[in-house]
Amino acid sequence: LEKSLKLSKKDTNVYFKLENQQRTGSYKIRGVLSKITGLTKEELNKGIVAISSGNHGAATSYVAGLLGIKNASVYMPQTTPRAKVDKIQYYGAQAVKIGKNYDEAREKGLEKIKDRGSVYIDSCSDGLVIAGQGTIALEILEEAPHIDTILVPIGGGGLITGISIGAKAINPQIKVIGLQTAACPAMIASLRDNKFYEMYPTEESICDALVGGVGEIPFKMARDTIDDIIAVDEVDIREAVKYLLLEESIIAEPAGAIGLAAIRKNPHLFRGKNVAVIVTGGNIDKELLLDIINK
Amino acid sequence: LEKSLKLSKKDTNVYFKLENQQRTGSYKIRGVLSKITGLTKEELNKGIVAISSGNHGAATSYVAGLLGIKNASVYMPQTTPRAKVDKIQYYGAQAVKIGKNYDEAREKGLEKIKDRGSVYIDSCSDGLVIAGQGTIALEILEEAPHIDTILVPIGGGGLITGISIGAKAINPQIKVIGLQTAACPAMIASLRDNKFYEMYPTEESICDALVGGVGEIPFKMARDTIDDIIAVDEVDIREAVKYLLLEESIIAEPAGAIGLAAIRKNPHLFRGKNVAVIVTGGNIDKELLLDIINK
Repeated sequence: LEKSLKLSKKDTNVYFKLENQQRTGSYKIRGVLSKITGLTKEELNKGIVAISSGNHGAATSYVAGLLGIKNASVYMPQTTPRAKVDKIQYYGAQAVKIGKNYDEAREKGLEKIKDRGSVYIDSCSDGLVIAGQGTIALEILEEAPHIDTILVPIGGGGLITGISIGAKAINPQIKVIGLQTAACPAMIASLRDNKFYEMYPTEESICDALVGGVGEIPFKMARDTIDDIIAVDEVDIREAVKYLLLEESIIAEPAGAIGLAAIRKNPHLFRGKNVAVIVTGGNIDKELLLDIINK
Repeated sequence: LEKSLKLSKKDTNVYFKLENQQRTGSYKIRGVLSKITGLTKEELNKGIVAISSGNHGAATSYVAGLLGIKNASVYMPQTTPRAKVDKIQYYGAQAVKIGKNYDEAREKGLEKIKDRGSVYIDSCSDGLVIAGQGTIALEILEEAPHIDTILVPIGGGGLITGISIGAKAINPQIKVIGLQTAACPAMIASLRDNKFYEMYPTEESICDALVGGVGEIPFKMARDTIDDIIAVDEVDIREAVKYLLLEESIIAEPAGAIGLAAIRKNPHLFRGKNVAVIVTGGNIDKELLLDIINK
């Protein structure tokens, strides 16, 4: 937890929870560690599989390597760029290309997992994964018990569910505010329509981690866990990535900068608050980073 | 300590020791903490003073705030930019502007410290400060005992002295290699001429932290502590800052990127080695960062 000198004012304090500094560059190892250490020996012998070409895939591979689990695979679309494949393989898991895009990789992957009897490491809608992500809240409130507001990006919703359960168990008054890209406000729509959108259409977005539908557990718990959701425009997310780099010396991926974007766009909402902003990860493609800096 | 996936090959491993992630954005709090916690109550009552507008000043202010020391000042030149003054004051110390440039601030500051009987917190030539910086070596070798080479930037030389003493106490075979900007190779000249250059002329440099003369203790111990020194061109340091940002998602100040610059320029020297590179800090001026990215 790092206090922002530039964003904090007399009665307003802004802190960054720097999950971009985690191993593998994102918070994802928390949930995966929680899940895998909760498996029985029999389950581990069946092999574990994640479906992801990004942070969750890297985290699963890293944790498998850390715990010495031999039979670990990460399924990903055939179109996954070389650098991502390399990173996932580097940590120790087998990288398996399957399906033309993420949806197909997921569909075919889940079938294969069922056929083989492997253990699926869900990135989002899994109690143990959610509990692991929740350790972020425990750390924040141990270090800064006066935090009254936590800003959390929402993709599937696993992260905000875990953080909210953890934070509200310690301080029921705390506000947990979700952030979605306006390009794909799936949780906002799910709550508005009272409907579980497992898939959701997206406009073009630089936030890989925040597009697609919501997770079932996060959706079912959302009315208890999420106090409010702010939709943030893509252009403001770009601005926030640039601001973090130049003003705070923080490299954030777009999904990790969305909390700061919300504060910069809506300062009145946070006046007088002690706000923790989850910077979820720092894995940003270099072409995208250069594009953001130079625009 | 973070292993570089991109720079590590089959028989060569490159690790970054990420002191840019330290509080205040540099390794400097180690030496200052070691020094201040070693002072007696009587000494603390006299007040502590550092002379620095940069990382050492911020570290001294931070440590004073952390330990609840009221009587702490940081002297700095009258020309110090607002952002640096703000940062130092923010942590709790009093910022005192004195002298037209750093040399004058140092001269007048040391006089004032003598007059007042305050305790001077030297950034470099002080046994306790050097011991504090040496904790970096202990951490590296605890986490990665197979490291056989450590790359350390040299400004005054306090950092390399501490790291070398710590590392060679654990493993006398370990090689500790210093790095200087070719714009100001003060330690190289001191060793060549066998002469203590307390001041040394510098060409234009982006490495604030690495210009000027050497410290007395570091110079006296250099033949025992430093196995070799590589002079690195400014243009290669710029390249390294950019590489770290785009390829490794690391924000390093120029002095913090010089180790990587040396590896990229002289890969043959490090083949087959297990190398730890000290990324000493991440405080880089945004105009300089933009200039480096866009050139």
